[in-house]
Amino acid sequence: MAINPDLAKERRNASFNVEDLTNFIYHGPERARRRRYIQNIALQEPFLKNCKPWAFRNREEEYEISLEKQLHVFKRQKELNITDDVDKFYYNEASAPSENAPFGLHFAMFLPTIEKHGTEEQRKKFVQLAKDLRIIGTYVQTELGHGTFIRGLETTATFDPNTQEFVLNTPTLSATKFWPGNLGKTVNYCILMAQLYTQGKCHGVHMFLCPLRDLDTHQSLPGVELGDIGPKFGFGSNDNGYLRLNNFRIPRDHMLMRYSKVLEDGTYLKPTNSKLSYGSMVMIRAGIVSAVSRSLAQACVIAVRYSAVRRQTEVSPGGPEAQILDYQTQQHKLFPLLATAYAYYFAGQAVQASFLKISKEIEAGNLQQMPVLHALSAGLKAFSSWGASAGIEVCRMSCGGHGYSLASGLPKIYTNITPACTYEGENSVMMLQTAKYLLKCSMKVQKGEKLPELVSYLSTDLSAKSCMAADVSLKCLVMAYEHRSARLTSAAAAAVQRYMSDGQSPEKAFNMAATQMTWAAKAHCHQYVVKVFVNTVVEAKIDDRTRAALTTLCKLYAVNGIMENLGEFLQDQFFNNDQVNILTRKLMTLLADVRPDAVALVDAFDYHDRILDSCIGRYDGNVYYALYEYAKSSPLNEKDVLDSFHKYIKPLREGQTSSPVPARL
Amino acid sequence: MAINPDLAKERRNASFNVEDLTNFIYHGPERARRRRYIQNIALQEPFLKNCKPWAFRNREEEYEISLEKQLHVFKRQKELNITDDVDKFYYNEASAPSENAPFGLHFAMFLPTIEKHGTEEQRKKFVQLAKDLRIIGTYVQTELGHGTFIRGLETTATFDPNTQEFVLNTPTLSATKFWPGNLGKTVNYCILMAQLYTQGKCHGVHMFLCPLRDLDTHQSLPGVELGDIGPKFGFGSNDNGYLRLNNFRIPRDHMLMRYSKVLEDGTYLKPTNSKLSYGSMVMIRAGIVSAVSRSLAQACVIAVRYSAVRRQTEVSPGGPEAQILDYQTQQHKLFPLLATAYAYYFAGQAVQASFLKISKEIEAGNLQQMPVLHALSAGLKAFSSWGASAGIEVCRMSCGGHGYSLASGLPKIYTNITPACTYEGENSVMMLQTAKYLLKCSMKVQKGEKLPELVSYLSTDLSAKSCMAADVSLKCLVMAYEHRSARLTSAAAAAVQRYMSDGQSPEKAFNMAATQMTWAAKAHCHQYVVKVFVNTVVEAKIDDRTRAALTTLCKLYAVNGIMENLGEFLQDQFFNNDQVNILTRKLMTLLADVRPDAVALVDAFDYHDRILDSCIGRYDGNVYYALYEYAKSSPLNEKDVLDSFHKYIKPLREGQTSSPVPARL
Repeated sequence: MAINPDLAKERRNASFNVEDLTNFIYHGPERARRRRYIQNIALQEPFLKNCKPWAFRNREEEYEISLEKQLHVFKRQKELNITDDVDKFYYNEASAPSENAPFGLHFAMFLPTIEKHGTEEQRKKFVQLAKDLRIIGTYVQTELGHGTFIRGLETTATFDPNTQEFVLNTPTLSATKFWPGNLGKTVNYCILMAQLYTQGKCHGVHMFLCPLRDLDTHQSLPGVELGDIGPKFGFGSNDNGYLRLNNFRIPRDHMLMRYSKVLEDGTYLKPTNSKLSYGSMVMIRAGIVSAVSRSLAQACVIAVRYSAVRRQTEVSPGGPEAQILDYQTQQHKLFPLLATAYAYYFAGQAVQASFLKISKEIEAGNLQQMPVLHALSAGLKAFSSWGASAGIEVCRMSCGGHGYSLASGLPKIYTNITPACTYEGENSVMMLQTAKYLLKCSMKVQKGEKLPELVSYLSTDLSAKSCMAADVSLKCLVMAYEHRSARLTSAAAAAVQRYMSDGQSPEKAFNMAATQMTWAAKAHCHQYVVKVFVNTVVEAKIDDRTRAALTTLCKLYAVNGIMENLGEFLQDQFFNNDQVNILTRKLMTLLADVRPDAVALVDAFDYHDRILDSCIGRYDGNVYYALYEYAKSSPLNEKDVLDSFHKYIKPLREGQTSSPVPARL
Repeated sequence: MAINPDLAKERRNASFNVEDLTNFIYHGPERARRRRYIQNIALQEPFLKNCKPWAFRNREEEYEISLEKQLHVFKRQKELNITDDVDKFYYNEASAPSENAPFGLHFAMFLPTIEKHGTEEQRKKFVQLAKDLRIIGTYVQTELGHGTFIRGLETTATFDPNTQEFVLNTPTLSATKFWPGNLGKTVNYCILMAQLYTQGKCHGVHMFLCPLRDLDTHQSLPGVELGDIGPKFGFGSNDNGYLRLNNFRIPRDHMLMRYSKVLEDGTYLKPTNSKLSYGSMVMIRAGIVSAVSRSLAQACVIAVRYSAVRRQTEVSPGGPEAQILDYQTQQHKLFPLLATAYAYYFAGQAVQASFLKISKEIEAGNLQQMPVLHALSAGLKAFSSWGASAGIEVCRMSCGGHGYSLASGLPKIYTNITPACTYEGENSVMMLQTAKYLLKCSMKVQKGEKLPELVSYLSTDLSAKSCMAADVSLKCLVMAYEHRSARLTSAAAAAVQRYMSDGQSPEKAFNMAATQMTWAAKAHCHQYVVKVFVNTVVEAKIDDRTRAALTTLCKLYAVNGIMENLGEFLQDQFFNNDQVNILTRKLMTLLADVRPDAVALVDAFDYHDRILDSCIGRYDGNVYYALYEYAKSSPLNEKDVLDSFHKYIKPLREGQTSSPVPARL
């Protein structure tokens, strides 16, 4: 179909070359090409093309189609020899966008955990079986009563030296395992987190390889009660499950014993290094920052394209209706979010890069940098998943009524990513972890001690005033964010100290200042994201016009963030009145500056229409055609007259024969 | 089942009598009792008790069960002689909480429109048929291409004097009617909004009674193409529909002609009074403010009760785990929202009361007050629906993982109410309507003209500073909100004037300042909500202890609103540093003050468990029991082993016969 003329015009008028930005986003022309090549293979698969549309599936179909799809993908990737992790990721993204795979945790958690925590014999026995999907597993940690606070888990594994077995039990209702993905109906194995008891003592939470279902019949094993936990807000294709264990026995060699060990006589041997999982948490949380940035980016693609196509209300009476993208209120909704999508994307990359750098230092024996990165990644995971979740809903609402239709693609993007606010560490808990680290830093600042690079700005002079001038320089923007974070950290630490000197215990004092600590932690994350964005646009090897467009977006991100949190920048008169006026006007001119490039900036993410799965976000802009076709194909329209008419509506007319009504009045 | 001991303790420790507050909320003990009496009748209905749980229905079932349910309710209300509108509302709320009825718009829009806009003959012919559900209709306005901007509708009704008929047409794809509730499969009639053409001239949008389906067979009539628009984000039981008309003819007397008329020769007669719908828009929007307050209240009930029951993380090592309601961060999430639910509830009531008062003035010939109320209700609808939508999601996320389960009841509350941000006037458009009115007021202030009471504060002295002192008085809080709104209005008006004096057209200038105008409009709504809350707690005829608890909540609403928008209060140094410090500390003490009354404050809304439909928001607090039972009843658990195992998973094992794996390793 022909490209909608408004979209065509937008693309002609962009100030930079879209391909240049796409190449930058995906790490150079070669990798950008490779990504497109891999995705095109998936998009051409007849099987995937012909799957029943996601929006029309009921829960049972969601699960079953995803299962079939994932096994098809597994087979095809083998046949096509797609083995590289990045290639696999892109192939999957094109195959099942914003869907959760019934085996997702098998590959993401079950297999890697055995590889990392299993003994050599265990790896020999289980890894290949798992790779071939001849056993299918998941990672079972969360219980009804405990999630992020792992030490509180109640499931027990008690060693019985007489039989050389662990006896697994669910001692209470709240100990019922609840939420693990794929646990309900799909897997036949799991990694079980349970409190280890041996020789009458509890040794804390350990990991056990636990069979759940008969490998032949798939029936749940005696002593194992499990099932699906029921429908959720999205995630329909994932059979998140529950599990209760009743004196269920597994052999001693089913405890993952690479680090901790239970000997034949029940003697417990401690792990030699307990900080091992520190690094993988950093990587998982950095991965979430990247994932939420992609979801927000997709929502922006849809909302910006639709806003370019959608015309509504004549500007002057009798004139043509305006593209809604020309309304400043629409720009003010969408452009800061578009900037945020880029900002989070760059931040996710930066954390991963820091992690790789710091990992090398650790190998060289320098452990100093890991805590600061760990604290940052925890907060950033929370900061970005909150920001992206709220932002996606703003995108959805910016599309008027059509945003509510599953046809828009936006509800699916939202329900698929909003759980990131809770999984892998509940956001508020994450923020408080970051806050606790900042509190320690603040104490060090008071003592004049040196801080690691990522937080060294905390020792900045708090009496300084902003250098902001009419040019709104990147340097003064960064300084503003550093100042705000340093001041809030200092204020929160002072509050804790005040409560303690009033006689409160450290725990109570911390809780009484927890809200202020959270403000400080958010400000810390915010300054990091701004700083990374600034460094990225300055250092990027891109065309000058592309850099100019990205710099505008970077300034918009920073200026809008100041305006949205202005009180935190004004409490100590860091900005004067003139500077606030400069920033207010700059916000409006930045919106106008982004306007001609908005479509190009979303195009640059290079999301195929099938990945967006959106009638209103189509590359060609034929949105009304697509909505109409979607509506016609709704399963409720298979029959003109539903059976419910005969059952419920027709009797209404027939019941009242006293004054018959003709069929047409 | 026994009440959870934590909840029991909370209820014992409340500072006021819950019943006293419940009676106040529901307008006195008699009406509160009546409400409970009516709801209990509905809750005892065996048919309603035994309906398949909402969470387990697929789309088709959602529709069909709601249809059956609504007809059952219709019949029972007749049998029980429940005729009062308030009684009906409470009966319906208990019968189908947060569900959309397939006939909802029949009673809410179709019937009232005929009664209001039909001629005497039309009313005689159609009203009783509609009351008996022998014709079922809806209100068909929105098209693919046009929603809030009604003048842009494209559907045509062209009068043909030869046959004395209107010829109805859908001239373009974007003219396809899209979204009207119940249009797809349920109704056989509608009120159609279409551009009236007669004698070669267009006379704008008018209303037509349009048959759509054969009353006997329910088949769509020739020339009528219609159907369901497909699945949405919630609203599954509503068959929102699309409609295309192809030279479809209706008799001349099917145009609703009480005000405008088309004579036999095609002569068009204008309506005598064109401002008639002004008042009903105010009432509908005030009704939305009340509706969103109820949804937010329900979300708060669930989240607060769960937070009292949920214990997580020991405060000091080895000690008991704390109720999460004791964490300040949790309080800071939930208590301001609880205050907001009360605030919106009182605001909705206040607008309705103002409307009734002003309606009497209008009858007495005084039309002056309606524009100010109209502008307020538009903005307030947007302000409250945005606030409630975002707030419900915060409540959901405050419940950890379980908030994502449909078992929590929270996703349903959210998806049912978030469309209020768009229907009955898109929120951003509403805010700009309020803003335009404020702009006019600002001009009047400049000219020294007198303003209506609801906006008279806009002429306040902008150089004044806050009177805020350590007691954080209600008076100084109100002054702060008035000051902020007046200042932002003045600043936005100045921006418009500056752009115009720079040579921009008025439309362009307004658009260039639209973001600032929106800030002003939000501040105006905010000050109204604060003022109503303050007046309510001061004037309420309640026990002093109840008043004290409500006053704390009122102050929390106001102080938290200042802290969240602090920049807008600080730009002109309205507050000094000391005052900001006072407010920051006051926020924390208010959270602590609300803490012991939190459960009582949510109990006071008196929502029955069946209305909340939440495993985690139960009155008795047996949340883990309920979640476990919910999970077990999930349809996916009807079989231990799903058919998909045999189809997809078993072949994985069998396909690799080279090294057989035993059924249990």
